[in-house]
Amino acid sequence: MASAALPEISKPKIVEGPGGYVLEDVPHLTDYIPDLPTYPNPLQDNPAYSVVKQYFVHVDDSVPQKVVVHKDDPKGIHFRRAGARQKVYFHSDDVHACIVTCGGLCPGLNTVVREIVCGLHHMYGVKKVLGIDGGYKGFYAKNTVYLNPKVVNDIHKRGGTILGTSRGGHDTSKIVDSIQDRGINQVYIIGGDGTQRGAALIFEEIRRRGLKVSVAGIPKTIDNDIPVIDKSFGFDTAVEEAQRAINAAHVESESFENCIGLVKLMGRYSGFIAMYATLASRDVDCCLIPESPFYLEGPGGLFEFIEKRLKEDGHMVIVIAEGAGQELLSQSIQSTTDASGNKLLQDIGLWISQSIKDHFSKQKMPINLKYIDPTYMIRAVPSNASDNVYCTLLAQSAVHGAMAGYTGFTSGLVNGRHTYIPFNRIIEKQNKVVITDRMWARLLSSTNQPSFLRPSTNLFSNENGSQKSLDKRVTH
Amino acid sequence: MASAALPEISKPKIVEGPGGYVLEDVPHLTDYIPDLPTYPNPLQDNPAYSVVKQYFVHVDDSVPQKVVVHKDDPKGIHFRRAGARQKVYFHSDDVHACIVTCGGLCPGLNTVVREIVCGLHHMYGVKKVLGIDGGYKGFYAKNTVYLNPKVVNDIHKRGGTILGTSRGGHDTSKIVDSIQDRGINQVYIIGGDGTQRGAALIFEEIRRRGLKVSVAGIPKTIDNDIPVIDKSFGFDTAVEEAQRAINAAHVESESFENCIGLVKLMGRYSGFIAMYATLASRDVDCCLIPESPFYLEGPGGLFEFIEKRLKEDGHMVIVIAEGAGQELLSQSIQSTTDASGNKLLQDIGLWISQSIKDHFSKQKMPINLKYIDPTYMIRAVPSNASDNVYCTLLAQSAVHGAMAGYTGFTSGLVNGRHTYIPFNRIIEKQNKVVITDRMWARLLSSTNQPSFLRPSTNLFSNENGSQKSLDKRVTH
Amino acid sequence: MASAALPEISKPKIVEGPGGYVLEDVPHLTDYIPDLPTYPNPLQDNPAYSVVKQYFVHVDDSVPQKVVVHKDDPKGIHFRRAGARQKVYFHSDDVHACIVTCGGLCPGLNTVVREIVCGLHHMYGVKKVLGIDGGYKGFYAKNTVYLNPKVVNDIHKRGGTILGTSRGGHDTSKIVDSIQDRGINQVYIIGGDGTQRGAALIFEEIRRRGLKVSVAGIPKTIDNDIPVIDKSFGFDTAVEEAQRAINAAHVESESFENCIGLVKLMGRYSGFIAMYATLASRDVDCCLIPESPFYLEGPGGLFEFIEKRLKEDGHMVIVIAEGAGQELLSQSIQSTTDASGNKLLQDIGLWISQSIKDHFSKQKMPINLKYIDPTYMIRAVPSNASDNVYCTLLAQSAVHGAMAGYTGFTSGLVNGRHTYIPFNRIIEKQNKVVITDRMWARLLSSTNQPSFLRPSTNLFSNENGSQKSLDKRVTH
Amino acid sequence: MASAALPEISKPKIVEGPGGYVLEDVPHLTDYIPDLPTYPNPLQDNPAYSVVKQYFVHVDDSVPQKVVVHKDDPKGIHFRRAGARQKVYFHSDDVHACIVTCGGLCPGLNTVVREIVCGLHHMYGVKKVLGIDGGYKGFYAKNTVYLNPKVVNDIHKRGGTILGTSRGGHDTSKIVDSIQDRGINQVYIIGGDGTQRGAALIFEEIRRRGLKVSVAGIPKTIDNDIPVIDKSFGFDTAVEEAQRAINAAHVESESFENCIGLVKLMGRYSGFIAMYATLASRDVDCCLIPESPFYLEGPGGLFEFIEKRLKEDGHMVIVIAEGAGQELLSQSIQSTTDASGNKLLQDIGLWISQSIKDHFSKQKMPINLKYIDPTYMIRAVPSNASDNVYCTLLAQSAVHGAMAGYTGFTSGLVNGRHTYIPFNRIIEKQNKVVITDRMWARLLSSTNQPSFLRPSTNLFSNENGSQKSLDKRVTH
Repeated sequence: MASAALPEISKPKIVEGPGGYVLEDVPHLTDYIPDLPTYPNPLQDNPAYSVVKQYFVHVDDSVPQKVVVHKDDPKGIHFRRAGARQKVYFHSDDVHACIVTCGGLCPGLNTVVREIVCGLHHMYGVKKVLGIDGGYKGFYAKNTVYLNPKVVNDIHKRGGTILGTSRGGHDTSKIVDSIQDRGINQVYIIGGDGTQRGAALIFEEIRRRGLKVSVAGIPKTIDNDIPVIDKSFGFDTAVEEAQRAINAAHVESESFENCIGLVKLMGRYSGFIAMYATLASRDVDCCLIPESPFYLEGPGGLFEFIEKRLKEDGHMVIVIAEGAGQELLSQSIQSTTDASGNKLLQDIGLWISQSIKDHFSKQKMPINLKYIDPTYMIRAVPSNASDNVYCTLLAQSAVHGAMAGYTGFTSGLVNGRHTYIPFNRIIEKQNKVVITDRMWARLLSSTNQPSFLRPSTNLFSNENGSQKSLDKRVTH
Repeated sequence: MASAALPEISKPKIVEGPGGYVLEDVPHLTDYIPDLPTYPNPLQDNPAYSVVKQYFVHVDDSVPQKVVVHKDDPKGIHFRRAGARQKVYFHSDDVHACIVTCGGLCPGLNTVVREIVCGLHHMYGVKKVLGIDGGYKGFYAKNTVYLNPKVVNDIHKRGGTILGTSRGGHDTSKIVDSIQDRGINQVYIIGGDGTQRGAALIFEEIRRRGLKVSVAGIPKTIDNDIPVIDKSFGFDTAVEEAQRAINAAHVESESFENCIGLVKLMGRYSGFIAMYATLASRDVDCCLIPESPFYLEGPGGLFEFIEKRLKEDGHMVIVIAEGAGQELLSQSIQSTTDASGNKLLQDIGLWISQSIKDHFSKQKMPINLKYIDPTYMIRAVPSNASDNVYCTLLAQSAVHGAMAGYTGFTSGLVNGRHTYIPFNRIIEKQNKVVITDRMWARLLSSTNQPSFLRPSTNLFSNENGSQKSLDKRVTH
Repeated sequence: MASAALPEISKPKIVEGPGGYVLEDVPHLTDYIPDLPTYPNPLQDNPAYSVVKQYFVHVDDSVPQKVVVHKDDPKGIHFRRAGARQKVYFHSDDVHACIVTCGGLCPGLNTVVREIVCGLHHMYGVKKVLGIDGGYKGFYAKNTVYLNPKVVNDIHKRGGTILGTSRGGHDTSKIVDSIQDRGINQVYIIGGDGTQRGAALIFEEIRRRGLKVSVAGIPKTIDNDIPVIDKSFGFDTAVEEAQRAINAAHVESESFENCIGLVKLMGRYSGFIAMYATLASRDVDCCLIPESPFYLEGPGGLFEFIEKRLKEDGHMVIVIAEGAGQELLSQSIQSTTDASGNKLLQDIGLWISQSIKDHFSKQKMPINLKYIDPTYMIRAVPSNASDNVYCTLLAQSAVHGAMAGYTGFTSGLVNGRHTYIPFNRIIEKQNKVVITDRMWARLLSSTNQPSFLRPSTNLFSNENGSQKSLDKRVTH
Repeated sequence: MASAALPEISKPKIVEGPGGYVLEDVPHLTDYIPDLPTYPNPLQDNPAYSVVKQYFVHVDDSVPQKVVVHKDDPKGIHFRRAGARQKVYFHSDDVHACIVTCGGLCPGLNTVVREIVCGLHHMYGVKKVLGIDGGYKGFYAKNTVYLNPKVVNDIHKRGGTILGTSRGGHDTSKIVDSIQDRGINQVYIIGGDGTQRGAALIFEEIRRRGLKVSVAGIPKTIDNDIPVIDKSFGFDTAVEEAQRAINAAHVESESFENCIGLVKLMGRYSGFIAMYATLASRDVDCCLIPESPFYLEGPGGLFEFIEKRLKEDGHMVIVIAEGAGQELLSQSIQSTTDASGNKLLQDIGLWISQSIKDHFSKQKMPINLKYIDPTYMIRAVPSNASDNVYCTLLAQSAVHGAMAGYTGFTSGLVNGRHTYIPFNRIIEKQNKVVITDRMWARLLSSTNQPSFLRPSTNLFSNENGSQKSLDKRVTH
């Protein structure tokens, strides 16, 4: 995505308080448009909300980023709490919202779309909500469809996205032209880190043009690799659905002699799905993720471990994230030439299956290998109940934020509370499994797989003696 | 449960710090047994953990109870963070643990049992883990079974509890006698608030006798009505499974004229399952919970709402928590006499079904009513992936805590972090849906059901005018 | 239903052949309307069918009712084979079809509706297909909706019936008036035995009036109690879904002491679902069905068996069909008086639960009883893959038959082949579990339940000695 | 498998009767061992069976192979009906049975194993049942395990086979040596056509040696390609599970522009799973099976159809059986050289995915292709309720047959009745989808896919004109 010369970008809004309190605030329309009129929040007249005492969020409510604290710690970084405000910056009749979904499928996309539409409609009386068709490029290249509660009524029970989606296709100024031409003043953008990076550019361009348009992001990544937030929507559903594939691998491997059940799961840059699916299943003997490099040959390598496990148990299950072992893969691919076969081998699951078969074939040790790639079967399921509720709250938070005049923010769960997070915090890096943290240790303990740290490269071996008596603090 | 003359109970351990920091600490064996020897944590030599830098929890790590804060707020109450300590107070060979499950079924019971056994075994090398059969009374009345990783290997894929369970049957001194006689020194107690209250009594009696026995509770309640903690294990699975019943009610009601699909869900004192299942489903027209009293007859009553909804849509779905409308029920039951029929009518689902049928029969308005009680079908399913991971962490936290010499604590998730919480905080009251909070408002907004506040009894009606301009702070 | 003075009814069409061959044929429009024009079957120009050599059914194809034969047996009764004919009696443009669904829900209703619409449309180019709303009474009392392949495209993935349904409401002459007024000439009627009895009356009235209207029935009964046919659609799905309830009962009963898991399944007059669900599950200790009377008290009674099983195993699962034990129920109800409680007790599941509790309470034997009624959760699921294919073929057979001018028939599977069966064979009696046949013996063998034949009433006891050496022929 | 010099094989047992009646009977121990003693069937004293009048099968019961008949047809071929006989040829205490499972996984394997064990035990009081480990080679190369009802109690709820399985490894004389050495006198062999061919050899060798050993086959093939029988066990479950993959392909393809969801299903030589899964799903645009050759390029080819469908709808779903298009594949593979990539391309799913991508890449038409291979996820699921009942009856039939002294037979369902079929009828050819029959026409009609008959190769084009007026008889 993006983009040699970034437009002049807005400065982070940092508010400090006593005791080391820091609020990393999100932009507001009034930051660059003075004297905007406000309106009382129509929720005050909504029968559902008017019976509820404590509905509106206090202007000072914030949520700390870090909740494992010592008694002398400074208060640290906080984010603004999401939720309805008493004053809104849009009159309901004037709102012209649009929603776009970008990138790969993820359970819950339709629920988020549904709840933005229903939230705007039922809570704020907003009638004009446009669905952008087929991702970012739908802004300038495609037809659109108007959405209302009736149209979206049952979509949360279906997988996929009714809006359609695509990768890439982002052209900031054409998109903002389209927003401006259509008179859109609230833009809801659902997508992964690339998409949110695009959303940040759209926000900056809107700010530069001085438009009264709120830009709200809802982070979507089935891989759970968005930083700051607790977890991304659809992740629970994906881990659940991955159990089917692992179960199948387990059953196959137990039924044949020297059988390896190999499951490839999503996770291009981070191994969260693989790790959680492994922890939930308890049937996995080895989990390979991008964050933990491994090697095949020699002592401490994967082949040795497979051989050992097969000799002990007669069968094993391996889970591999799609982004694991990429450096092995690229070395291997360079040394061959054929085109279409190689394209297939760029799939780590197929490549490692072939490598394992080749190795044991050379070793004259007969093995069975059953390879399962459930990726699309996982992505395409409807979100489960837990994700449905989560998506509802994410969507409502985004709606409340946009109505309240916030912009350039993503709606995100932080330590169990819904917050507004500035784009820069979401896109500056990817969330990854910290393999020196205890969640990974739990996994290693449950699988008993090797650490794949070659003697010479063991990061911790030198310090081992002394370190044992050190205080090993955990951040998670 | 219990008990005329409570034994002298231990005082809460409160630690204060700067900026209003308060730590509500849990008891420790050294509180009443001085000069206990310590041992290095065997995890230091565990290959899975030794590669991990930040495994042990810092002695000062704590987690705040409240995470929605203002910049000037005092730091407030904190709980001790759960996790492995560098020093433990039991030598692995000396540990003789026991596990008991009490109360009704809940998805995840077997996973917790499995992970206590595997955690003790794999992390700490503990070999002696006893399963108490059939709840508290199993301590003195029944045979026991030794558990090891092989025995428990697949139990997380099954519903129920392999240990068996029962309600009540708690006799503190007989239980502690049994613990003492058998030489047990770690007691893991899985159960609801009554069970945890019993666990507190066991702890106090053990402390009074000066025994080196750690008592660790793992809170179990499918109703999610344990205070302080984020949610109880099995809750996600229960809400998921409840969707089936709601879907069926929806399909039935749409296929017949003037048809009401009525689903009774769990929740004797709190309506969390009903509320979350309603929010996740989006097919529910009315959700009745114990926290929100309702009435049947007259303006604003349930019958009026049903009639209105049937006239508009031709069908509707009602979800009712088992503890809802108890005051209506008891009034009604008193006025009749027959024994066995009445016992049935003490079931709110059957009673309200009959009441609705009687009402519309009197009104000469033909209706269809399809009543579904999925309670046991929900309770008996195995835990889903998300609950499996959660149960694993709860169990491991309990094991780390007991090994580290903590006692009289429950393992609980607070703001997304695992903590040790003193018993008194868990048992002092029940968690309830706050119907003046915004989660309930979201539900009302999604169902459009009446608030069931009679004009005369509307708690907020007097203040409505002025309050709208007030700051309504939200606690959740 | 039905009706003092039946209209003069058509005589059965019986064709005889050599070797004892008998064809019980179905009526044809030409039976009472001579000189009807015929048209070539448009399938001949359909690209999908024109490549297929053997598509049309031979005019003489028939299927025997009985397939267990001896070498000297006469050929016996046959039914006309279903399928496309070379000549049809309707021009596609002239067809005006209607579809109605009657009675309770059953998985597959929507698939049948979909496939009648799609079959008429894609195979025969028929464009006018009317959906009658809400069962028979929709003919004269309700709006209708036109159906086309787009409208019905996804309905097979949903439970229930998009047409709506109701019980009763049948008024033959008003219905035929409506058919005549609207110019409908093909009537597809989906429903149980009562509904098919109504369909027979409609056919007779149409015949009496001399209308060129084909009446085709598709038998629907989740209970599988339609005679002649192999099984009714939705039955497989129902048995599958019933497993969930039995599993839950099994898990509950194993987790508590002296616990009985009791599941009520559908089956007002026949116990097929209960029997097959029991045979499929293998977790059931006792299966009670309408065809096999049982008693509670005394030697050989249910209470004795429960006590024995609980003492042996500590738990048990009972499955009861809703129509079982009705004579016990009616005796019991007569002896009490209270109204609304009694209405509940007319439910055999609730009544027997209460009876068991009362008995063991009197016996001072503490038991747990967990009662599950999954009826509506079973009825409302979408049909499974097997039923989807079955429904497709049933619907297509009905369409081929009506187009070919047959009328007064039901589409039904006989010994694995689709046939046309005269109404009288479908409605003359109900299919029941033959408890002297070996399927029931298999069940008794798998559950080890008592035969509930009191010594004095044992039908076979006298003949036992001699009979053992007799040839016991099996009819199924 | 097998085997230069076949042992002298037994002649088919053909019995003729009046009216063209033919019985293709199965061998019996008394065919080659005269004067075997018989015993009364112990079922006569079994409480479950003794109340049942019509339990034993008449010695003359038979089932016709063909049930679509004309009134003048001869009676045709029949098979012996399966079931309990009044006399058995083994004393229960003398039976020493063994069970072996061979070939790939199939839902229901464990149920068949369970029901052979339970059938022998509960019906006949047989205590010695040996499980052969890991397929045929387990007879001479591996340990064995004794099976009893307790060991197999829950195995029907698990996928796979607890006995383990393997392909090949058949050595007739070593196997019969092992049978003889161990004193086994009933051999139950569960496997596909290769396995049944092996079973036939074992039977012949046993007959040649004059051993009193019954050999009973239970046909297993997830592909449903066993001739004569109605369907193989596990097939329903497989078609059901395949729906998940097709649904996922449907959701993916609808969410992206120009997107093809491609699902590979089982079916090396026959396309039954692909065909039924397509008919059940209704979301498939093209179904490719081994029986219906297709081509890619040019008019009427696959690429043209894909382009057309994408231009019309923007998305499509293709289902391909693993054995489809093998001639295209082998042509393509021969023209390339690289080893490991090519091995992958021998998978038709991967190869055709790559071919489609390459084609549209050359055409400069951007497409998305999502490839799903659910094979192992389908094979590994437990059998559904319908298959559980079916497996139970298959297993019990085999047990009754072996006890009654029949040998060299397979247990199979013919026109809805359980029969004993001579091996030669099962292994002489494979069951295939008849693409000139109406089931395939139904599929073509539902998908609207091309017939892939090139103008020059259209088998029926010449005769089309005249043939339309011919009688096209259907055999299925």
